[in-house]
Amino acid sequence: MKRSPKLTKQKIVGAAVELFDSQGFDGTTVRQIACKAGVNVALISYYFKNKKGLLEWVMVDYYEGMFHRLDACRYDSEWESLSELLHSMAENMVRFQCESYRVTRLIQRELSVESMLGREIMSTYLARLKHYFAAIIEEGITEGEFPALEVNGIVIQLLAIISFPYSYPQIIREVFYLEPLDERFVEQMVCYTSDFLRQMLTPINTLR
Amino acid sequence: MKRSPKLTKQKIVGAAVELFDSQGFDGTTVRQIACKAGVNVALISYYFKNKKGLLEWVMVDYYEGMFHRLDACRYDSEWESLSELLHSMAENMVRFQCESYRVTRLIQRELSVESMLGREIMSTYLARLKHYFAAIIEEGITEGEFPALEVNGIVIQLLAIISFPYSYPQIIREVFYLEPLDERFVEQMVCYTSDFLRQMLTPINTLR
Repeated sequence: MKRSPKLTKQKIVGAAVELFDSQGFDGTTVRQIACKAGVNVALISYYFKNKKGLLEWVMVDYYEGMFHRLDACRYDSEWESLSELLHSMAENMVRFQCESYRVTRLIQRELSVESMLGREIMSTYLARLKHYFAAIIEEGITEGEFPALEVNGIVIQLLAIISFPYSYPQIIREVFYLEPLDERFVEQMVCYTSDFLRQMLTPINTLR
Repeated sequence: MKRSPKLTKQKIVGAAVELFDSQGFDGTTVRQIACKAGVNVALISYYFKNKKGLLEWVMVDYYEGMFHRLDACRYDSEWESLSELLHSMAENMVRFQCESYRVTRLIQRELSVESMLGREIMSTYLARLKHYFAAIIEEGITEGEFPALEVNGIVIQLLAIISFPYSYPQIIREVFYLEPLDERFVEQMVCYTSDFLRQMLTPINTLR
C-alpha cells in the first residue's frame, strides 16, 4: 500500500499542534511528535526540516487560511457599506479562530515570545492583518461613514477582543462559566464584536 | 556581612522572571536561575521549594499587587459615579500591567497553558477580578446609570483590551510602530479603555 504524503503531513502537524499546545514548543521533542503521529523521525526531517520548520509551517498555514477567509469577504461577497464589510470580516475571523482554536492559542502564545520566527510572522501576516482592517476604517473616515478615530487604537482593540477567548479558553470556561467552542458562545462573540464596532464607529455627534 | 533574605528573594525572583519570559517556564532550569541570580541552588529550594513554587510566588505577588491598586480605587478614593470608578479601575490596571510588563506577559502566557497552577490562579484571582468589574457594572445597570448589557461580554472585552498590548508588546512595536512602555502609549491605552467603557455603557436609546 502506498502512503499518501498529504495524509502523513497532516498526521505529523496534528500531533505537533497537540504537543506544542499542551507541553509548550520548548518542552516538546521531535521524537515525541513522531511517536504520537506514528511515523519515523526521519520523515519529519524530510517534510519540515526540524521542529522550528514544523512550527513555521503551522503558522503559515494558519494565516494563509485566515486571509483566504478575509479575502472572500473583501473581494467575493457583496456588501453595502464599509461597516457591513468590517462586521463580516470580524465575524469570519471569530469563526476561523474558533474552528482552529488549538492553533490560535498556540500561535498567540508563541507570538508572546521574542523570537525571529515571531518577528517574521508579525512583519508578514500581522502587518497585513492590521492593514486590512486599518484600510477599511481609514476609507470610512475619509468618506464620512465613520468618525475621525484613532485607527491604530480601534484595530488593536478589535484584535484583542477577537483573540482573547480563543487564546484563553480556560479563562472563559473557569471564570465566566461559558463554553468557548459552543455555537452559542461563538454567536455571542460575533455580537460582542459587532456591538464594539458599531458603538466605536458611530459618529460622536449623534452620541453625546 | 549578613545577607538580607528579602533582597536575596528579590534577586531570585528577578532572575526567574527574566528567564521564564525569554526561554519559557519549561525551557528554564533551577540551575540557570541560581546562576543568573548569583545564589546557591539550595537557597531557591529553601525559599520557594522548586521551580513551580517560584512561578506560583510570582503570580500571587503580581495579583496581590494588582488588587492592592484596585482596592485603593474602590475603597480609598472618592468617586462621583460608578462610571468614574470603572474608569479609574481600568486606568490603574493599565498602569499596573505596564509597570510589570514582563510579569504580565509571563503570566498571560502561562495562563494559556492548561495546568493545575493556572486553574488555581483563575479560580482565586481571575474570578475575583471578574467579580470586581461585574459587580460595578451590575450595580450601574440596577441603578439605571448603565444600559442593560450582557455583563460577561463587557468584562471579557475590557480584560482583553487592557491585557493585549502588555501580553504582546512585540506586536505593538513591530506591527503598529508604537512603543508599549512609552508614557504616551500608556496615556493612549487609558484613553482607549475609557472610550470603550463610555461608548459601551452609554444607554442605547441615546445612541440610535
